[in-house]
Amino acid sequence: MASSLLSTPSRTLAPAPAPAGLRGRAPAQVHLPRGCPAPRRSSALRVRASVAIEKETPESEPPPTFLREDGRGAGSGSVRERFEAMIRRVQGEVCAALEEADGSGARFVEDVWSRPGGGGGISRVLEDGRVFEKAGVNVSVVYGVMPPDAYRAAKGEAGKNGAADAQKAGPVPFFAAGISSVLHPKNPFAPTLHFNYRYFETDAPKDAPGAPRQWWFGGGTDLTPSYIIEEDVKHFHSVQKQACDKFDPGFHPRFKKWCDDYFYIKHRNERRGLGGIFFDDLNDYDQEMLLSFATECADSVLPAYIPIIERRKDTPFTEEHKAWQQLRRGRYVEFNLVYDRGTTFGLKTGGRIESILVSLPLTARWQYDHKPEEGTEEWKLLDACINPKDWI
Amino acid sequence: MASSLLSTPSRTLAPAPAPAGLRGRAPAQVHLPRGCPAPRRSSALRVRASVAIEKETPESEPPPTFLREDGRGAGSGSVRERFEAMIRRVQGEVCAALEEADGSGARFVEDVWSRPGGGGGISRVLEDGRVFEKAGVNVSVVYGVMPPDAYRAAKGEAGKNGAADAQKAGPVPFFAAGISSVLHPKNPFAPTLHFNYRYFETDAPKDAPGAPRQWWFGGGTDLTPSYIIEEDVKHFHSVQKQACDKFDPGFHPRFKKWCDDYFYIKHRNERRGLGGIFFDDLNDYDQEMLLSFATECADSVLPAYIPIIERRKDTPFTEEHKAWQQLRRGRYVEFNLVYDRGTTFGLKTGGRIESILVSLPLTARWQYDHKPEEGTEEWKLLDACINPKDWI
Repeated sequence: MASSLLSTPSRTLAPAPAPAGLRGRAPAQVHLPRGCPAPRRSSALRVRASVAIEKETPESEPPPTFLREDGRGAGSGSVRERFEAMIRRVQGEVCAALEEADGSGARFVEDVWSRPGGGGGISRVLEDGRVFEKAGVNVSVVYGVMPPDAYRAAKGEAGKNGAADAQKAGPVPFFAAGISSVLHPKNPFAPTLHFNYRYFETDAPKDAPGAPRQWWFGGGTDLTPSYIIEEDVKHFHSVQKQACDKFDPGFHPRFKKWCDDYFYIKHRNERRGLGGIFFDDLNDYDQEMLLSFATECADSVLPAYIPIIERRKDTPFTEEHKAWQQLRRGRYVEFNLVYDRGTTFGLKTGGRIESILVSLPLTARWQYDHKPEEGTEEWKLLDACINPKDWI
Repeated sequence: MASSLLSTPSRTLAPAPAPAGLRGRAPAQVHLPRGCPAPRRSSALRVRASVAIEKETPESEPPPTFLREDGRGAGSGSVRERFEAMIRRVQGEVCAALEEADGSGARFVEDVWSRPGGGGGISRVLEDGRVFEKAGVNVSVVYGVMPPDAYRAAKGEAGKNGAADAQKAGPVPFFAAGISSVLHPKNPFAPTLHFNYRYFETDAPKDAPGAPRQWWFGGGTDLTPSYIIEEDVKHFHSVQKQACDKFDPGFHPRFKKWCDDYFYIKHRNERRGLGGIFFDDLNDYDQEMLLSFATECADSVLPAYIPIIERRKDTPFTEEHKAWQQLRRGRYVEFNLVYDRGTTFGLKTGGRIESILVSLPLTARWQYDHKPEEGTEEWKLLDACINPKDWI
């Protein structure tokens, strides 16, 4: 998951099939801008993608809310409103705790933007601190429109309302809000952390006002160390399990496996890291219960991560340790650019690029045919990425 | 373009639409291996991709030819045979010239592999030399099968034989051979070079033995500097133009624009570098003429590049120059992993991963919202990547 709202689409929002690259031969299909790049690029992207959002405009201050005044905004008590409040609170708390852990006086830089039709976001980034090489913590709220196909897929997959009204066509307005964060420490023994929690709603399609609205939650928290320190990995997974167990004993095994399955670098046959929890399209529980669950998960980020950072931020390391960390960062880049649905969706639909790609590490490395020697610490990490383990 | 045969598909060979990542929810669709990763991964990839090739096996020595003995192999005088001979000769010449330019005694490491049903490749990589951070020069030969859809698309786009036999179905055997190379020097004033030349043939589909066979050429050479040194950029483009002009005065303008269009990082609205020439699906000229043209282009790589490397390999530079080079390397990674058809095709179809990803730089960098100051040398490079120029 990357780092704008666009980091958080359900798979039901995938853009229509399109060539991976531009097609060089036919200029009419290329939409290459000349001279006046930004606006034409934006419109080209809108033409090509099935789901697209407006271009963002910078703001000097975060507004009290990014929600529209449509009866489900400020003061309505809606799930939208409470979810936005939660992710903005968590963004503040996480950034404050990371600045304290960094201990260098380095501060998060904030970028705020909004979109003319409603929605917007706050990106906070700390680069080149004492402890953190790059830390991004972003929230965003998006109002968009998805094509009827995506809506039908959403109803079929997530709605479980039968096929009765699945034939209704017309563009479907959607709402999404999310927090997304990737934290890359400098020390090779301090793991990278990613978390992302998001809430989606679709309105009734315009030509079928009586059709039921859909909602779902998604998200997860996962750990990507370069070296396995069992105490840390166990602690991390234990905190995830505790958060899950408060709601349903079936959650942790299900979401742990889902995480191992999701963060899979197919062409390498290895996972990006050592997992955590991941879920998507979750709506088959009480909505209030799932809001509480997402909140609990987001609130578990700091207790899961900060103790590990405190223990490892000053561990002595060699150039070889650092080079291995950089190779693993290369894998992080591969996963995010090739597989991550949020990133690939965001890049295709014209999301705020700097927010989406803040998930990439400051530096990464690719070495031809690098294979750690069997039995080494590097080999053990790779083995655990190839064969996911139960850590607790 | 990346670096195996898989770096060289026509767009008509694109795999059928598939989700960008694994779908976490449905284990039946995930194909995640447990315990015995390599074979199951390979078969999972074959199930999921429309075009797939066999797993490679390492060889200790390069064989005289990777062609099958099927009447179009050794001694037949076929275009296949002459193309394979050409790319293997060029691989040897380019590697020898690069070792000499590197001047450190560093040598290319060679990996040879073959596939049980025919075909194979030779990857040569020089890492951490004095001049070159990473240089990969690969050749490969692939026998594969493409689905009828891809065949129909190929005929429609490249065949120009009308729709009469376009309804014929059945898997279509194809042959492809190519050379692919990416050269990343250390010095920030020495540009990265990429070149890739490839030849494709399809056989008649099995259930339509009389249907005509298709063939086409593709490829190009392009330059990616971090700083514009006009003398170098002009020299590079002049050599490309000379090669083109020997065959058709229309080639250079057409293939120069095609190159600017192809190496486009859509989400950044900028090109990867300063272009060169690029063409694909080229079959609307005499086949012998195009074989000569591809040969001329491949033979122009060294005269286009070596003089630039000789001039810039020892240019003094600062940490700031190096950091900017690393940021541009990040863009190179973004293009190759997100847009390059050869790379994305190779990753999806189970090609030799290390050969495909040797195109990635040894190191790269991503900095949040980096914007060079207007008028600086960094800004000028970025401007030229946004607004392609005529250099000669």
